[in-house]
Amino acid sequence: MTTYHALNEQEATEIARGIEGFFPAGAPLACREIGDGNLNLVFHITDSASGKSLIMKQALPYAKVVGESWPLSLDRARIESEKLILEGTMAPGLVPVVYKYDPELSLTVMEDLSDHVIMRQGLINGTRYPLFADHISTFMANTLFYTSDLGMNQQDKKLQVKNFINPDLCKITEDLIFDDPYTVSANNNVPPAIEDAAEALRNDTQLHLEVAILRDKFLTNAQALLHGDLHTGSIFATPASTKVIDPEFAYFGPMGFDVGAVFANLILNYAGQQYWISDDAARKDFRRYLLDTIEDVWNQFDRKFRVLWNEYGIDRLANATPAYQDFYMKRLLQDTIGFTGCKIIRRIVGLAHVADIDKIPNDDIREHAQRGALTIGTELIRRHRNAQSIQELIDITETAMQ
Amino acid sequence: MTTYHALNEQEATEIARGIEGFFPAGAPLACREIGDGNLNLVFHITDSASGKSLIMKQALPYAKVVGESWPLSLDRARIESEKLILEGTMAPGLVPVVYKYDPELSLTVMEDLSDHVIMRQGLINGTRYPLFADHISTFMANTLFYTSDLGMNQQDKKLQVKNFINPDLCKITEDLIFDDPYTVSANNNVPPAIEDAAEALRNDTQLHLEVAILRDKFLTNAQALLHGDLHTGSIFATPASTKVIDPEFAYFGPMGFDVGAVFANLILNYAGQQYWISDDAARKDFRRYLLDTIEDVWNQFDRKFRVLWNEYGIDRLANATPAYQDFYMKRLLQDTIGFTGCKIIRRIVGLAHVADIDKIPNDDIREHAQRGALTIGTELIRRHRNAQSIQELIDITETAMQ
Repeated sequence: MTTYHALNEQEATEIARGIEGFFPAGAPLACREIGDGNLNLVFHITDSASGKSLIMKQALPYAKVVGESWPLSLDRARIESEKLILEGTMAPGLVPVVYKYDPELSLTVMEDLSDHVIMRQGLINGTRYPLFADHISTFMANTLFYTSDLGMNQQDKKLQVKNFINPDLCKITEDLIFDDPYTVSANNNVPPAIEDAAEALRNDTQLHLEVAILRDKFLTNAQALLHGDLHTGSIFATPASTKVIDPEFAYFGPMGFDVGAVFANLILNYAGQQYWISDDAARKDFRRYLLDTIEDVWNQFDRKFRVLWNEYGIDRLANATPAYQDFYMKRLLQDTIGFTGCKIIRRIVGLAHVADIDKIPNDDIREHAQRGALTIGTELIRRHRNAQSIQELIDITETAMQ
Repeated sequence: MTTYHALNEQEATEIARGIEGFFPAGAPLACREIGDGNLNLVFHITDSASGKSLIMKQALPYAKVVGESWPLSLDRARIESEKLILEGTMAPGLVPVVYKYDPELSLTVMEDLSDHVIMRQGLINGTRYPLFADHISTFMANTLFYTSDLGMNQQDKKLQVKNFINPDLCKITEDLIFDDPYTVSANNNVPPAIEDAAEALRNDTQLHLEVAILRDKFLTNAQALLHGDLHTGSIFATPASTKVIDPEFAYFGPMGFDVGAVFANLILNYAGQQYWISDDAARKDFRRYLLDTIEDVWNQFDRKFRVLWNEYGIDRLANATPAYQDFYMKRLLQDTIGFTGCKIIRRIVGLAHVADIDKIPNDDIREHAQRGALTIGTELIRRHRNAQSIQELIDITETAMQ
C-alpha cells in the first residue's frame, strides 16, 4: 500500500480504519468515491452507527481536461496538505481539520463537511451567508499577513517560498487565466453567441497591456502564500460557518489574486441572478446583498490586515512608515480589482466556466449575463491601476448589469 | 579532505595539483592566501615554470564584521559556483572560467585574473575602460533576460528560484542597505562630521516611504536571477576586458538592483574625484567620462534587452503587446534609479564604505564628497517612481556636485 497507486473504495476504507481513535473498532464503514475524477479521487467514508465520517482526497497524476489528460505532479498533494495545516493554525475553524497526510499515496484525510454546501450552489439557490464577510476577511487577512514579509521572519519566508514552488498548478493559471482568453487557443471555450465579444477581447491591445502587467505580478510577485484558487467552488458554507477547501494551487504570489477570486465569483453570481431570481424586487435585493458583501469583505479585510500589521508587524521600516501602510493597502486594492477582472473574463470565454452563468437554460438571459460579465471584467482590468476605492468595483458592476 | 574545514595553503596546493590537465605534472606550485578573511579564503596558486595559475575560493562559515563573527551558510559557495557557471554560458568571456566546484569543501576553483585590476581601484587611479559599457550592458542584458519570465521557460524558472533561495546573504542586503541607514543601528558607520546629514536621513519620513517601496521590491520581486552585489569591487577590468566576479549574493530579485549597483558605484567614484584628480579640467573630463559611461550602459542595456526580447522572448502575451515592452523598460529604469540611490546612501552612512571616498585623506574634501553623495542618493530615491529618462540621474549627479 505504500507505493503510489490510485486507491479503490476498499483500500480507502482500510486506511480510514487505521486512523487511530477516529472510528470505533469494528465500525461498519461505508465508502463512496464522490470526486469528479478530474484532478483527484475523493472518498467519503461514514460510520452510520456512530455518525462519524471523514473525507480522503487522493491526487491523481494528471488532470482530465475536456477528455484529454494533462500530466500534473503529485507534489501538489503535499502542497495542499501542508497549506491546509498552515491555514488551520492561522485561521482556525475556517478550514477542514487534517487528520492525516500520506506522502507516498498523495493522500490527505480530513474533516467531512457534508453538512455544508458548496457556496457557489448556495448562492445560485439564493442563500445568504451573513457571516461570510467576517469569516473570509479573517481567513485572507490572517493567511496573507502571516506569510508575508510584514508578518513572518523574512528569512524563514524564503524557505517557505522554496517549499511552495508549484510549477504545474501555476502553469494552469498562467495559461487559462492570463493568456488563453486573449488569443485564439484550443483551451478556450467561447459560447458561440458571444464570439464577437471574444474577438474584441483578442483585439484589445490596451487591455492586453493591463493583463500583461497583472500576469507579470502573478509570475514574479512573491508577496504571500496564496490559496491560489479561492473561488466560491472552493468554499463550503452554511449561514453560520465558512470552510475554505482545496488549496492545491498554493504558492507565493500577489495577495490581490486571492481577494480578487472571491470578488470575481460573487460578481459572476450577480450576473447570473438575472435568471435565478425571476422576481425583480427579490433579485435587486439579493444583488444588493452580493455587492454589500463585497464591500464588507474588502473593508473588514483592510481593517483586519492593518490591525495585524500594527500589532504583529515584524518589518521595522514598514512599521515606522505610516504612509507605507496606506500605499501598500491601496496597491493591494488595485491588484485585487485587476485580478477580479481577469478571473471574471476567464470564466466566460476560457476553459472552465461557472454554473452561476453556464447553467442558465434561457439562451438570451445567459448571453446577457455573459456579455455583462465581460464588460465588468474588461472595465476592472482597464481601470485597476488607477482605482482608489472598492466603490469603483461596485459601480462598474451595477452599471454594466443595469 | 572531504569533510568541511578551512584549508591551509598546503592543502589548497594539493587540490590544485589534482585538477586534471591544468598544471604540468610535478610543477613547482606556489600558493598564497590573498583573501581579506572576511567571508572567504582565497588562494592564488601559480606555477612560475609554465606561467599557469588559478584561484581557489573557499567560503568560511561566518562573516567577520568589525571583528565580530556573523554566521553564514556555506550554501552560498554552491550558489556562487552555480551562478558563475550559468553566467559563463549566458555571458561568455565576461566572468572567470570555473575549473571545479567541490561542494563538501565549499570550494570553487577558477580562472586567475591577476592581470586585471579591481575596477574600483582602476577608477580611483583615473583609468578609463572604453569597453566597459559594452561589456557590462551585455552581461546584464543576457543574465537578466535569460533568467526572467521573458526569456526562460516559466516553469523551469520556478525551479531555479527554488535553487537560488539565499536567505543569509539577502539578510545582509536587507539590513545594511534597506534598513540600517534610516535608523539608529549599531551596524551603521556614520562619519562624525556628517552626523547632521545622517540624522536628516533618519527623520525623512517621505524618503522612508520610497525606501520601504524599494525594500519591498527586493523582498518580493523575483524578476530575474541577480548577481546581487554588482559594485565596482566585484568587477575585474582592463581597458580591453571586463570580468564580473563574486556572485555569492545571487538570488531572484528585481533587475534594477543589479543595474543600480553599477550606477551607484560610478557615481560614488564621481563624488570622490574631487580629491583624486586635482586638476580642474582633467577632473571635469573624467567626470564627464563617468556620466557618459552611465548613459551608455543604460542605453546599450535597454537596446540589448529589447533585442533579446524581440528575438528570444518566450511569453506570448508579452511579445504580442508592444506597449508592455515600453512599460517594462520604463519601470526597470525607475527601479534602477531608486536602487542606485539606496546603494549610494549605504556606502556613506552604512556599515561598508567605499575607498573612492573613504580613502580621501583631506577631511574637507571627503566631507564634501560624502554630503554630495547623500544628496544624490536621496534625490534619486525620492524621484525614482516618476523618472522618465536616464538623463535625470545624470542631471541630479551633476547638480549635486557642482
